[in-house]
Amino acid sequence: MFLGGNLAENAGGPKAVKYGTTKDYVLNCEVVLPTGEIIWTGANVLKNSTGYNLTQLIVGSEGTLGIITKIVFRLIPLPTQNLLMLIPFFSPEKACEAVSAVFRAGFTPSAMEFMERDAIDFVLKFVDVKLAVKEEHKAHLLIEVDGHDLDTLFKDCEKITEIMYEFECDEVLFADTAQQKNDLWRMRRAVGEAVKSHSIYKEEDTVVPRAELPVLLKGVKEIGAKYGFKSVCYGHAGDGNLHVNIIKDTMSDNDWENKVPLGIREIFELCVKLKGTISGEHGIGFVQKSYMDIPFDASTLALQKGIKSLFDPNGVLNPGKMFE
Amino acid sequence: MFLGGNLAENAGGPKAVKYGTTKDYVLNCEVVLPTGEIIWTGANVLKNSTGYNLTQLIVGSEGTLGIITKIVFRLIPLPTQNLLMLIPFFSPEKACEAVSAVFRAGFTPSAMEFMERDAIDFVLKFVDVKLAVKEEHKAHLLIEVDGHDLDTLFKDCEKITEIMYEFECDEVLFADTAQQKNDLWRMRRAVGEAVKSHSIYKEEDTVVPRAELPVLLKGVKEIGAKYGFKSVCYGHAGDGNLHVNIIKDTMSDNDWENKVPLGIREIFELCVKLKGTISGEHGIGFVQKSYMDIPFDASTLALQKGIKSLFDPNGVLNPGKMFE
Repeated sequence: MFLGGNLAENAGGPKAVKYGTTKDYVLNCEVVLPTGEIIWTGANVLKNSTGYNLTQLIVGSEGTLGIITKIVFRLIPLPTQNLLMLIPFFSPEKACEAVSAVFRAGFTPSAMEFMERDAIDFVLKFVDVKLAVKEEHKAHLLIEVDGHDLDTLFKDCEKITEIMYEFECDEVLFADTAQQKNDLWRMRRAVGEAVKSHSIYKEEDTVVPRAELPVLLKGVKEIGAKYGFKSVCYGHAGDGNLHVNIIKDTMSDNDWENKVPLGIREIFELCVKLKGTISGEHGIGFVQKSYMDIPFDASTLALQKGIKSLFDPNGVLNPGKMFE
Repeated sequence: MFLGGNLAENAGGPKAVKYGTTKDYVLNCEVVLPTGEIIWTGANVLKNSTGYNLTQLIVGSEGTLGIITKIVFRLIPLPTQNLLMLIPFFSPEKACEAVSAVFRAGFTPSAMEFMERDAIDFVLKFVDVKLAVKEEHKAHLLIEVDGHDLDTLFKDCEKITEIMYEFECDEVLFADTAQQKNDLWRMRRAVGEAVKSHSIYKEEDTVVPRAELPVLLKGVKEIGAKYGFKSVCYGHAGDGNLHVNIIKDTMSDNDWENKVPLGIREIFELCVKLKGTISGEHGIGFVQKSYMDIPFDASTLALQKGIKSLFDPNGVLNPGKMFE
């Protein structure tokens, strides 16, 4: 997870909701600078007010400022208990609305994952998991709570379920066995691969304040209709982080190359309008760098490029990544 | 707390242990740059992998990179229940050893504060709190647990108390009423002022990995003996953050001005040797900047100064702070 992924956030893991993002656990990094020096960015401590925060500058910098060779993490006790529920909804927007209602009621599930209907359909063809999905189920939430006391978790699940019913869900599926939990997680985790196996696709990593998820989802579908593309939406709803997989399917190459980027631009503009941004956990790299003018104005971009020049005056690390 | 203090960590608050430091709650800042532009450093989202982390670069920068004019915080549900215990120890080192034992056993108290005997003596003369302290009590730990379920908290306190007895503590004082809790917190919070009212002092904000606290405390006392100064140690032990108040008392002005800084330098060298650093929450400012060569080597300091020049090319913001 860490070596290949983006350390800035919990790419691949759904636990950010309760425990903070991966970056919050990084205390100190050993970094080889592009100029050859080896530095430690901070100290192995929980609190540090000594100079600028070089640790968090390196985390998520996509290998453009230095090469991380060692990381010191903060650890927390592993929760000993967890419970998992799958909730079918009759409307994807209502499912999204239910997400922030849970947090407003004072609960912090350890995972809260959204899958719209197509995600479920694709994945059930892709993994050997049996799930009874009715025609009228248009989206699912997968909710996990964890902790050390099972009674407390059962009580929490009961109250969360009550909140779910306010948003017009069908019967809640409670994972009774370790096997069932494992199946539900396998299903959720395979969505990306399942969509990929079906069609060429582009995956966008939109992120907005959690309460804006219903607006984002509605907007994504409207923008898709305008530009003629279909999308499969799923992801870390508890974090406001919605993966939008745009499907090529039978779209012409010309439309795919010319129309879709206009649609993506509109989706990202919507994210920023909602006080979100264009990547929650995947990063920018080559693919998203032409959209960096959407979240950042000229002076913010100039600061970012200035930081790159400061660390890497010869531009030897991941050249061409993140910025045009 | 935020306007006057250092946003990087939870200056003044003892809650970092369980919930992460204040900086982890800062999602986005509006900043007026020294060049006049107004920017937002990030987005109002829980996860963000879009460009370099300007938010955490600004947090804790002590007003040297820009003026923060708005902050967007992440919120978590307020815990509805808490329990508070005060534990007297016969040895300050044993009290420090007990701190990391609690975490190793899987508990994450919401506060874990250390006060050595002198801190208690000073503060009991300063605030109107009654506390029966025996001659042989050489240090105290103040431990708070919080959450939503009182039964769970009582169970946790029972187990934490068992751990405490392994480190040779006297009878645990359990705060039975809101008034008692309030008194204990008033006492803890007044330590700094109480010491200040007694003598001219210098407060050092040492921080080390939690498990190294006993080594730090022992080292501070040895260094004090070597240079002829007395210190009162207390603070956020759960964070490994020990405030070392060096007392002038009857020391000559000459020793105070010339010998004490050598002792402080040795204390900071010890912190860094233990993989800690020279400020956990108070920051650097003018007072500590001559010690910045201890945690940082030349290339790290050059990067830090480069960041300052990038943001503030004319050096108009807090000139002379943080760096020589």
